Amino acid sequence: MSVTAAQGFTAAGIAAGIKENGNPDLALVVNHGPRLAAAGVFTSNRVKAAPVLWSEQVLGGGEVSAVVLNSGGANACTGPQGFQDTHATAEKVAESLNTAGHDASGEHAPGAVAVCSTGLIGELLPMKKVRMGVDKAVAQLTPHGGEKAAIAIKTTDSVHKTAVATGDGWTVGGMAKGAGMLAPGLATMLVVLTTDADVPAAGLDAALRAATRTTFDRVDSDGCMSTNDTVLLLASGASGVAPEAAAFAEAVRTVCDDLARQLIGDAEGASKDIRIEVINAASEDDAVEVGRSIARNNLLKCAIHGEDPNWGRVLSAIGTTSAAFEPDRLNVAINDVWVCRNGSVGEDRTLVDMRYREVRITADLAAGDDSAVIWANDLTADYVHENSAYSS
Amino acid sequence: MSVTAAQGFTAAGIAAGIKENGNPDLALVVNHGPRLAAAGVFTSNRVKAAPVLWSEQVLGGGEVSAVVLNSGGANACTGPQGFQDTHATAEKVAESLNTAGHDASGEHAPGAVAVCSTGLIGELLPMKKVRMGVDKAVAQLTPHGGEKAAIAIKTTDSVHKTAVATGDGWTVGGMAKGAGMLAPGLATMLVVLTTDADVPAAGLDAALRAATRTTFDRVDSDGCMSTNDTVLLLASGASGVAPEAAAFAEAVRTVCDDLARQLIGDAEGASKDIRIEVINAASEDDAVEVGRSIARNNLLKCAIHGEDPNWGRVLSAIGTTSAAFEPDRLNVAINDVWVCRNGSVGEDRTLVDMRYREVRITADLAAGDDSAVIWANDLTADYVHENSAYSS
Repeated sequence: MSVTAAQGFTAAGIAAGIKENGNPDLALVVNHGPRLAAAGVFTSNRVKAAPVLWSEQVLGGGEVSAVVLNSGGANACTGPQGFQDTHATAEKVAESLNTAGHDASGEHAPGAVAVCSTGLIGELLPMKKVRMGVDKAVAQLTPHGGEKAAIAIKTTDSVHKTAVATGDGWTVGGMAKGAGMLAPGLATMLVVLTTDADVPAAGLDAALRAATRTTFDRVDSDGCMSTNDTVLLLASGASGVAPEAAAFAEAVRTVCDDLARQLIGDAEGASKDIRIEVINAASEDDAVEVGRSIARNNLLKCAIHGEDPNWGRVLSAIGTTSAAFEPDRLNVAINDVWVCRNGSVGEDRTLVDMRYREVRITADLAAGDDSAVIWANDLTADYVHENSAYSS
Repeated sequence: MSVTAAQGFTAAGIAAGIKENGNPDLALVVNHGPRLAAAGVFTSNRVKAAPVLWSEQVLGGGEVSAVVLNSGGANACTGPQGFQDTHATAEKVAESLNTAGHDASGEHAPGAVAVCSTGLIGELLPMKKVRMGVDKAVAQLTPHGGEKAAIAIKTTDSVHKTAVATGDGWTVGGMAKGAGMLAPGLATMLVVLTTDADVPAAGLDAALRAATRTTFDRVDSDGCMSTNDTVLLLASGASGVAPEAAAFAEAVRTVCDDLARQLIGDAEGASKDIRIEVINAASEDDAVEVGRSIARNNLLKCAIHGEDPNWGRVLSAIGTTSAAFEPDRLNVAINDVWVCRNGSVGEDRTLVDMRYREVRITADLAAGDDSAVIWANDLTADYVHENSAYSS
């Protein structure tokens, strides 16, 4: 269902030969309108891949008629040639779609084709394969291609990720990839969302920013921020329904939250999903800062892998932040057992049952009324193995 | 020779039974004067262990006559009882030293006894064993006890760490422990330095702060900041020589640098020591910020473990900082091969030889004249194993 759950979209996912193992590696999503509205959020890493720089320009135009995504190469840190390759890919997509006559009502323009890439940094894409792959994908576009598109954007993902939410006569659907290099700052993965709701670009932008702020922006698998992270939301208006802003925003948030959880659940080498809830913070910013500090503490991540309720490591992580709190008023629960009370020993740590994949850490700052939830993963030998041999 | 290389000091290291395995776990260092000057730097973690809070008070008085250190328990996050225990330990040391008549010229006061603890957070110390251990250590104090003291402060350290530098008629010596939870912010380990130079407290403080800023404060093994980090410098004045400030500062820096490198070389589970030099930065602060960001990037740390010169991960780490740079002017060398030039592909990555323990990363920001060196370790399955089973 994925990106073709909503009316007005076709998609395809094919093997272009970018990946040496022959797996699918090129996806195409086309918006057939009547509306071509779009919004996007991109990595806040200052080292941005060529496709991010290109797609930011495309979004500036306010219309996106197609998105082409490749796995097997990030096209990041590839200099002027990398940017030319991204540009050439967008031109090829527009040309191929126009030749195929997919949208009799209007020509596809390269400037309305967003490009996303994911894979190893620092290598140029095999452009001959990309061009042939675009033709192949255009030939296979169907209103049922969402699943194949979601499969083609996988890198080290073990499963493909899709989600759908429905409103009163309209639908929001999406696909995501991302299994490592997940951290906030922004989107932290490739995500394409589509909707047939009739929403202008400004409305899409507001809904998407609100949604990513509390979903993708609050998963922190390994503290590393990518050069390629992109989240796009495309609206075809094909349902003819203009939803209430609040209902639409909630549907977008639901799909983003679902996909974000799937990313954490499939993170490289992880054996635990850690839900960190910071409560009674003086501000939401404080809660997020503390949550991220806990999420990024390697010693704690190892302890959780070992099913060890080592709350001292939670306190030492909190202590590195600038959030408002008094050390002797901090409380920490692991899986609802308050193992730390008033900055000191609380309930018996042997009461904590950590056998299951989900681990809940609650940090009570006793400093206000705000809260935030951050999702993270444990640190495992499998993570080390996957990431010590990735490019070789 | 450690803390007894300088004249005027005795030391001991004994097994008090705090560690269940019977290994040495209590060290005592006594300054016999004639001067009792001292300086200290402590963790900048806001969650500070009881002995840190106590020793900060002691240093406020400007005189330290003895330092007692225990491994086997951090006495952190232990509430009012933990602080009382630290206080009681200092009282016991003063009482035992006075009973033994070690310094006929003056009484030891509890307020001049610094206390350091290291080990698991969140558990009270077995005070009966600590008290008996203090008596045992006092009975074994000798001017040759530096080595045993260095052994008694080990936790997961595989070797004990000592260093000495000599001036014209005076000496600076020291010992350190620390193998995990090493990160800047401050001292990040337990270190006691002694000197027989005749230097007042203000001179010690200036030399120690200058030295730690560019040594202990620039090792970042795993990004985790401890609750107990302490570096103390004690001066007996027993040489009768008042050295020039610059020569003394350089000797202190030399000993700190030596010990800091030993800490990185013995970090938990590490297989590589990574020297990260950031050059041509707009400011030293920028250079340090970029160096730490590279040092803490888990994906890069895994790649280096796998002997993979994955420079894209260096660039993505640089991109998360606020330092002055242009992405397309960044250059990166790994073991002197400039694999990244102008933010893009540089020399052939297969030229990089990463077989040896030391790996050198050079990041050229092309933005100014400042530089800094940060030392880090790789991320290994052994690190995960050691830290997932630490408290159990």
